Amino acid sequence: MTTVADILKFVETLAPRAMKMDWDNVGLLCGSRKTPVTKVLVALDPFEHVCQEAAAWGAELIVTHHPMIFRPLPNVTDETSIGRGIMTLIRSNISAINAHTNLDQAPGGVNDELAKRLALVNVQVLNPCGTTENGESWGLLRAGEVPEQPLDAFLNRVNTLLHCEGLRYENGGNPVRKVCVGGGSCADGMPEAIAAGCDTFVTADVKYNQFWDAHDLGLNLIDAGHFYTENPIVPILAEKIAAAFPEVEVKVSESHRDCMKFY
Amino acid sequence: MTTVADILKFVETLAPRAMKMDWDNVGLLCGSRKTPVTKVLVALDPFEHVCQEAAAWGAELIVTHHPMIFRPLPNVTDETSIGRGIMTLIRSNISAINAHTNLDQAPGGVNDELAKRLALVNVQVLNPCGTTENGESWGLLRAGEVPEQPLDAFLNRVNTLLHCEGLRYENGGNPVRKVCVGGGSCADGMPEAIAAGCDTFVTADVKYNQFWDAHDLGLNLIDAGHFYTENPIVPILAEKIAAAFPEVEVKVSESHRDCMKFY
Amino acid sequence: MTTVADILKFVETLAPRAMKMDWDNVGLLCGSRKTPVTKVLVALDPFEHVCQEAAAWGAELIVTHHPMIFRPLPNVTDETSIGRGIMTLIRSNISAINAHTNLDQAPGGVNDELAKRLALVNVQVLNPCGTTENGESWGLLRAGEVPEQPLDAFLNRVNTLLHCEGLRYENGGNPVRKVCVGGGSCADGMPEAIAAGCDTFVTADVKYNQFWDAHDLGLNLIDAGHFYTENPIVPILAEKIAAAFPEVEVKVSESHRDCMKFY
Amino acid sequence: MTTVADILKFVETLAPRAMKMDWDNVGLLCGSRKTPVTKVLVALDPFEHVCQEAAAWGAELIVTHHPMIFRPLPNVTDETSIGRGIMTLIRSNISAINAHTNLDQAPGGVNDELAKRLALVNVQVLNPCGTTENGESWGLLRAGEVPEQPLDAFLNRVNTLLHCEGLRYENGGNPVRKVCVGGGSCADGMPEAIAAGCDTFVTADVKYNQFWDAHDLGLNLIDAGHFYTENPIVPILAEKIAAAFPEVEVKVSESHRDCMKFY
Amino acid sequence: MTTVADILKFVETLAPRAMKMDWDNVGLLCGSRKTPVTKVLVALDPFEHVCQEAAAWGAELIVTHHPMIFRPLPNVTDETSIGRGIMTLIRSNISAINAHTNLDQAPGGVNDELAKRLALVNVQVLNPCGTTENGESWGLLRAGEVPEQPLDAFLNRVNTLLHCEGLRYENGGNPVRKVCVGGGSCADGMPEAIAAGCDTFVTADVKYNQFWDAHDLGLNLIDAGHFYTENPIVPILAEKIAAAFPEVEVKVSESHRDCMKFY
Amino acid sequence: MTTVADILKFVETLAPRAMKMDWDNVGLLCGSRKTPVTKVLVALDPFEHVCQEAAAWGAELIVTHHPMIFRPLPNVTDETSIGRGIMTLIRSNISAINAHTNLDQAPGGVNDELAKRLALVNVQVLNPCGTTENGESWGLLRAGEVPEQPLDAFLNRVNTLLHCEGLRYENGGNPVRKVCVGGGSCADGMPEAIAAGCDTFVTADVKYNQFWDAHDLGLNLIDAGHFYTENPIVPILAEKIAAAFPEVEVKVSESHRDCMKFY
Repeated sequence: MTTVADILKFVETLAPRAMKMDWDNVGLLCGSRKTPVTKVLVALDPFEHVCQEAAAWGAELIVTHHPMIFRPLPNVTDETSIGRGIMTLIRSNISAINAHTNLDQAPGGVNDELAKRLALVNVQVLNPCGTTENGESWGLLRAGEVPEQPLDAFLNRVNTLLHCEGLRYENGGNPVRKVCVGGGSCADGMPEAIAAGCDTFVTADVKYNQFWDAHDLGLNLIDAGHFYTENPIVPILAEKIAAAFPEVEVKVSESHRDCMKFY
Repeated sequence: MTTVADILKFVETLAPRAMKMDWDNVGLLCGSRKTPVTKVLVALDPFEHVCQEAAAWGAELIVTHHPMIFRPLPNVTDETSIGRGIMTLIRSNISAINAHTNLDQAPGGVNDELAKRLALVNVQVLNPCGTTENGESWGLLRAGEVPEQPLDAFLNRVNTLLHCEGLRYENGGNPVRKVCVGGGSCADGMPEAIAAGCDTFVTADVKYNQFWDAHDLGLNLIDAGHFYTENPIVPILAEKIAAAFPEVEVKVSESHRDCMKFY
Repeated sequence: MTTVADILKFVETLAPRAMKMDWDNVGLLCGSRKTPVTKVLVALDPFEHVCQEAAAWGAELIVTHHPMIFRPLPNVTDETSIGRGIMTLIRSNISAINAHTNLDQAPGGVNDELAKRLALVNVQVLNPCGTTENGESWGLLRAGEVPEQPLDAFLNRVNTLLHCEGLRYENGGNPVRKVCVGGGSCADGMPEAIAAGCDTFVTADVKYNQFWDAHDLGLNLIDAGHFYTENPIVPILAEKIAAAFPEVEVKVSESHRDCMKFY
Repeated sequence: MTTVADILKFVETLAPRAMKMDWDNVGLLCGSRKTPVTKVLVALDPFEHVCQEAAAWGAELIVTHHPMIFRPLPNVTDETSIGRGIMTLIRSNISAINAHTNLDQAPGGVNDELAKRLALVNVQVLNPCGTTENGESWGLLRAGEVPEQPLDAFLNRVNTLLHCEGLRYENGGNPVRKVCVGGGSCADGMPEAIAAGCDTFVTADVKYNQFWDAHDLGLNLIDAGHFYTENPIVPILAEKIAAAFPEVEVKVSESHRDCMKFY
Repeated sequence: MTTVADILKFVETLAPRAMKMDWDNVGLLCGSRKTPVTKVLVALDPFEHVCQEAAAWGAELIVTHHPMIFRPLPNVTDETSIGRGIMTLIRSNISAINAHTNLDQAPGGVNDELAKRLALVNVQVLNPCGTTENGESWGLLRAGEVPEQPLDAFLNRVNTLLHCEGLRYENGGNPVRKVCVGGGSCADGMPEAIAAGCDTFVTADVKYNQFWDAHDLGLNLIDAGHFYTENPIVPILAEKIAAAFPEVEVKVSESHRDCMKFY
Repeated sequence: MTTVADILKFVETLAPRAMKMDWDNVGLLCGSRKTPVTKVLVALDPFEHVCQEAAAWGAELIVTHHPMIFRPLPNVTDETSIGRGIMTLIRSNISAINAHTNLDQAPGGVNDELAKRLALVNVQVLNPCGTTENGESWGLLRAGEVPEQPLDAFLNRVNTLLHCEGLRYENGGNPVRKVCVGGGSCADGMPEAIAAGCDTFVTADVKYNQFWDAHDLGLNLIDAGHFYTENPIVPILAEKIAAAFPEVEVKVSESHRDCMKFY
């Protein structure tokens, strides 16, 4: 029978542990490797409502990108949302596994999928950290090309293709031709993007000073949202698990949407 | 004749150095205390275009909230925007002074002005750091009340009153009655806001996880933009300097707008 | 109805949080303050078998000296005994509270009880850390007197009174008259004991070098076991909780014995 | 004539400096490399009474496992036992050399001798740190096999073979077949022992929590005493020095016994 | 009979331990508090030749300003001059005590004596660290006045009064009227000297950049030598000990001169 | 036309950036790579008066050994000499480049030139850090030979050849035959010098304890001044730049002398 261990092993084939950053926490963070699995819920985050959805649906496993526990926990109580999430999982005998920076950096992971969604071509890994056995480079950021277009056209494209409800951006003054992408909080990588000849950077969680740094660099900087830049990997991950384990029911979370709205 | 020293002394009456945070850099950061001053340009930031505007206008002094130099500089060259800004100032014999966290925390400073703009009443300093000689509390955050209203009505109010071009927010599920404000990046203060009984927090530079933390806390969290939450102090500061030095021409920067846009 | 919060509040009357050491983790470490409580299991440690005993007995709360979580946890899985313990508690809806160094240091706590069991007289706190509202000193170690006796007689007394199965000791060369006690790993306090005029020190977890340090100091050093020097507080704590909450059933763990044996 | 330098050079052939741990202090710690040597006293520790024995016997050199100075000394006075030991040596013109973690880790060193005394067979270095020129692995722990036997039988064997006066142990619930050994304070190596398939671990200075960790791991953990697990190397070392320097009188300390006793 | 303890106690009346800097090592650093003393050698440094002089003269105690051990020692061997010095002392049963930064900072200590030698008047402690029971300020630097004179005249005066064989200096461009003094390496105190209105600073171990800093500050900076600025306290200390212990023979080292020469 | 970039590129051929120490700051520290250059002022230090000389002469570039900014700057004002220097440069459109530890370590750099000036033969790099493409070793110190001579003769030679106004030295007790040189503050390298068989060390900024360390080591230690040991590279550097850029006027600073004098 398929167990948590089997699915974890498969996920770590897609996103090997060795590709994670030093400070990261990935793998089995709650539950038991031995639990037999018939239903898997896949989501970007293991937030409390996702844990509740998994329990309501009868899943034995949640697979997420962000870790259930990031800063080690001094307690597990109903006074924090992490504590409530863990208590929900344990009471329903649900395990939680994740692939975080290993999935960001892996070939075919978060950032390759983001590049693909944005229809970039000639996509390359910026400053690769290593090479897989198959000779594929891996690393954090990706750069690729689009037909030259005004920024406005590209903003429209990003908004539509990522299903965003809005964007924040800074106009670096150039048309869009070569685009660097980094899902989540990757704006620190702007100098790498410039060095690679990019005119545009798509990422999220951009701060005031970073928009101005982009302005000074003449780089178009687009904050497309942490959720919207990383969530594209979720259905892909679900499909891959479903394909590998046909006897298991795999579903993308229906309750998990970004809680941030634009006005 | 009025000098840079005179105006700096006056600004530090409004925002005493003793109110700054340990890590901050405030006061005279470029030029000379002895320079006679006839024209002062006031702006939120000493960005390169602000320095150019000052030079074009013939100012001898710029007064800003953010510091000209935040991380100490290893060089002053035309390869960084800070270097170019400093070179512009020095070539035009312009000095630069600033009041940063001391102005955030001072009575009548950034956050009192933000509270005032939002028409909060019964405004109080959260967790005061001290008391002035006049018996006024000072500290970072402010909390005050508004007539009870749906979040949507309050969002409209914030957008209008701060002249924002858009907002990002998370709906904590409660109507708005007691509001905490912190211009710039103050979302770390959410637990303080909750402890003070606030249902709503207005700040900026909010990250994905912070929106979810607010969600878990049942707090309405509004990102009104770093520029829009801090800029209200700029005309006030200009007016106060103009009133104190009638012989000096004081102007708010005309070129300085937020470079971040919404799509 | 009596809740976890009520009992925690009572325990922190006996051993105020303010008496804990900086690095310690005490209070509610698992479960919920709101859980109604009818049965409380009290034990020195929240080890896995204690959690199982609590679950089997139908307790809603365990009260221990050592914390459920000491080093913050990166995961909660069945691959560690702490993870298994927490999972057992959560599945049976049992909360866990503890008082650790606050109970060591409190008047009437671990070390006062140890002194009492050994029938020390004129007991005093060594190097007090503070004074309670009632004017009682508090701090880590206690020193008191016994009728002068050979070390061998005192060893027999310790072994009998603490129900040890054996002792390890070093003979400092003096008869026993003034004794310092510190339950658990307190041998670092030897210089304090010497400074207070003690000839004998009772503690636990003593290392090779520490026995030789005692030898050099001419101090009798007795390792009576971590369990045996701290466990005396357990029935006292159980009695106090039972007296304060007559409607609640309170029991000392029956399964928890020291796993260390002598050969 | 044989000098301190000659004997040090020989000892560091047996236990090369390159095998010591980074934090360790080994080699000539007191006296002079040039001193001619006719009598060598060998002991586990350079404690004060060992220094006195060396002086009384007329030795010019003591060779020990533990270093004369571990934490660098702020003074050399008669107010500490280390100070008194050094003063005794210097006044009698005695040098002190030692091999500590280099001797623990060397082939034929502390842990190989401990394995040999316990009659382990198929002994291997756990997680070797390197390989000598002769192709021998070196590292801290050793694992080897014994004929399968109940824990009680093995306890008897350890007690007898190491001449202990008692043991402390925890019963992991398994018979003894594969044993890991680490003289001194090596219980941190339990995960390594488990990973190597050991059911039993012999070491010393075991703390309360470590006995419980062993319990949770199902590992028999035996604290045979720091002295008794490391002292077996002492006569071996004495013999090797005597064989290499037939003109020198070599003696094992007669005064050095463990000061810790069981009751 | 007079012992080391008696003399140490007296020295620490002149220069209380509480006046030492945190990182310093003072008091009894070698030997025994109980040694009876008939001859005391006083010197600035406990260098090897001073230890030899003490042994040759038959002293039982050396009293110095600099400590015998500054960085804690990993060994005591004849391969370092500190080791050789300690071995010389121990073999001749000589103890070593010292008063270092406590003597720099004490009233009547190193820097007061330096000010006195230079005939400064209206001498004050710069930035006092505290006040003695007698109401005297104490701290590191001293400032005092001289009749206004050209720098050249003052250089001559320093050279003569301190018995220097030469000086290194930088001409700050002002005549000498108010002088700051700090024996040894005190040039970091230049801003304090400027703030106190001094035009001249006498200290030692001055580096290239420090001479230029003085140049930029318009401060005359004189490097009169570490030995020559601190040695004046030595005969004073000897006299005070001699006066307090008339039964003891006290002598200033005859062998200790500065090893640095000018060409 | 020749630009700052061209000359920087040339200087970094002589002293590649890869040869600098980690903590150092070298290259373009003020101004612009694009500035056309007709006049270059070369000096050891970019002190304020050197900046003024450059401005008065009409230079567009200063090339120095020491960096314009060593500790990153929190401000650029007329209240510090570095601030005044930078303001002078910027107002006259002068750039500043430097090669510091890269020039110390490079073949043909500061220390090779110092060895050459002192007419050392068989000069070698001590403990080389690497090898250039041409197979030349590079690193900090140099050692070379002189005809055996008394220390006094060598002192005379150093004083004359380096145009010093005086020397400070310690007599190690040996004639001079093999000399280690390190311009600036290199006395920490004494053990390396001894290990290389040197009897004499020429460096600068020597402190009291270092003279005594040399005394204990039997090493002649000569402090020839920071300026005098490093300045020999300045005319060489000027010549090389002049040769490479014949269209540019290159001059060694006329105003820059050591501000330190002997009395």
